[in-house]
Amino acid sequence: MEKEKFTIVVFSGELDKVLAAFILATTAASMNMEVSMFFTFWGLNVLRKKKLTSGKNILQKLMNFMNRGGADRLPLSKFNLIGAGPVMMKMMMKRSKVPSIGEFITIAKEQGVKFIACTTTFSFMGFVKDDFIEGVDEYAGAATYLSLAREGRISYFI
Amino acid sequence: MEKEKFTIVVFSGELDKVLAAFILATTAASMNMEVSMFFTFWGLNVLRKKKLTSGKNILQKLMNFMNRGGADRLPLSKFNLIGAGPVMMKMMMKRSKVPSIGEFITIAKEQGVKFIACTTTFSFMGFVKDDFIEGVDEYAGAATYLSLAREGRISYFI
Amino acid sequence: MEKEKFTIVVFSGELDKVLAAFILATTAASMNMEVSMFFTFWGLNVLRKKKLTSGKNILQKLMNFMNRGGADRLPLSKFNLIGAGPVMMKMMMKRSKVPSIGEFITIAKEQGVKFIACTTTFSFMGFVKDDFIEGVDEYAGAATYLSLAREGRISYFI
Repeated sequence: MEKEKFTIVVFSGELDKVLAAFILATTAASMNMEVSMFFTFWGLNVLRKKKLTSGKNILQKLMNFMNRGGADRLPLSKFNLIGAGPVMMKMMMKRSKVPSIGEFITIAKEQGVKFIACTTTFSFMGFVKDDFIEGVDEYAGAATYLSLAREGRISYFI
Repeated sequence: MEKEKFTIVVFSGELDKVLAAFILATTAASMNMEVSMFFTFWGLNVLRKKKLTSGKNILQKLMNFMNRGGADRLPLSKFNLIGAGPVMMKMMMKRSKVPSIGEFITIAKEQGVKFIACTTTFSFMGFVKDDFIEGVDEYAGAATYLSLAREGRISYFI
Repeated sequence: MEKEKFTIVVFSGELDKVLAAFILATTAASMNMEVSMFFTFWGLNVLRKKKLTSGKNILQKLMNFMNRGGADRLPLSKFNLIGAGPVMMKMMMKRSKVPSIGEFITIAKEQGVKFIACTTTFSFMGFVKDDFIEGVDEYAGAATYLSLAREGRISYFI
């Protein structure tokens, strides 16, 4: 029997929202749903390596200089406080044994959650595949994603 | 016959987004859908009493000092202007006879809308049940919420 | 045979989020889905003419002075930098041949995507129909929108 599909667009690159996305995704996977996460725009930062992404022109270089990647340095959507907020949040998560985003990536991969990286964002942000961590299952656009989403019952935009 | 289910994750704690969530929820309830709202992260502020939440350690105390609860003091997602924006918005809502969030809570409860408070957030924010208003129907995690959402046709993340 | 319905609530008025909404909407339309976009709150700025909206009282005048409309002057959700961010983003989009929001409006209309403007927001923001561009198909509230959304499989809140 085919599994029920569960899909999430991870648009936001903020620690708190990404955490919510992973809690929903891994919970759905543990409930035996087939989960796909489509990372796009700022959400792609979760899957970017921590190194500086080059970009193909001065605009992309400038944007990528401001818009750093790496699952362990995402900002908060509020109380960011120039980086103090995320440090605090991460300490609070650790004390309560809530996995970090890096740990959630590992858990999700073990559960078979599919990671799709949005190629449209790639083109205008100047990203290349080498900027991304292993674990990305597919590089694709919105049509690929929507053909999964339309077969499921739950789909979120986060 | 079973009612059609309608579910919302209320992640954001901003007046404008919470207002949108309640407009959708109460409209769905008036269309005879069975509505559940799952309050999580900043969204829990809607259901917190106005008193200062203690927290169990210094980090939680600090976070809860910044992150005040209470349905009548939510910030705006834009034009917050250190509190002037929400005051303005609330006056505009009143003039147009749009219910306040407090009034929407009452309306929703009268319609039988179910309020679920996220226990995962509880653990790392250091909240206890006594920090919350009456009207919370259930304290539960993502699995409980998703088992409702998967039975419905519409589910939003706000 | 009836087409599969795809619906989006466009709540946010930020360039990046509105762009994501239009990419999803026009992709869904090209996959032969029947697409409706419900513009509400800040999202209505996308459909507002660039002229100054008057408002009916001093509060609405003040809000509308801050909250400018026009698809070509939306802010970014991050790195806004007092308007430098959106300029940069628009140059990046142009270089990668990603349509502007204005162009996406034209594409969506050609595909038959339905634009619904939220009348509840109208009442408390003091908007009138003349503040809006042609291309709005319907002025309606949440109930009209939800009766479309409940018939579809995918519905997002952006």
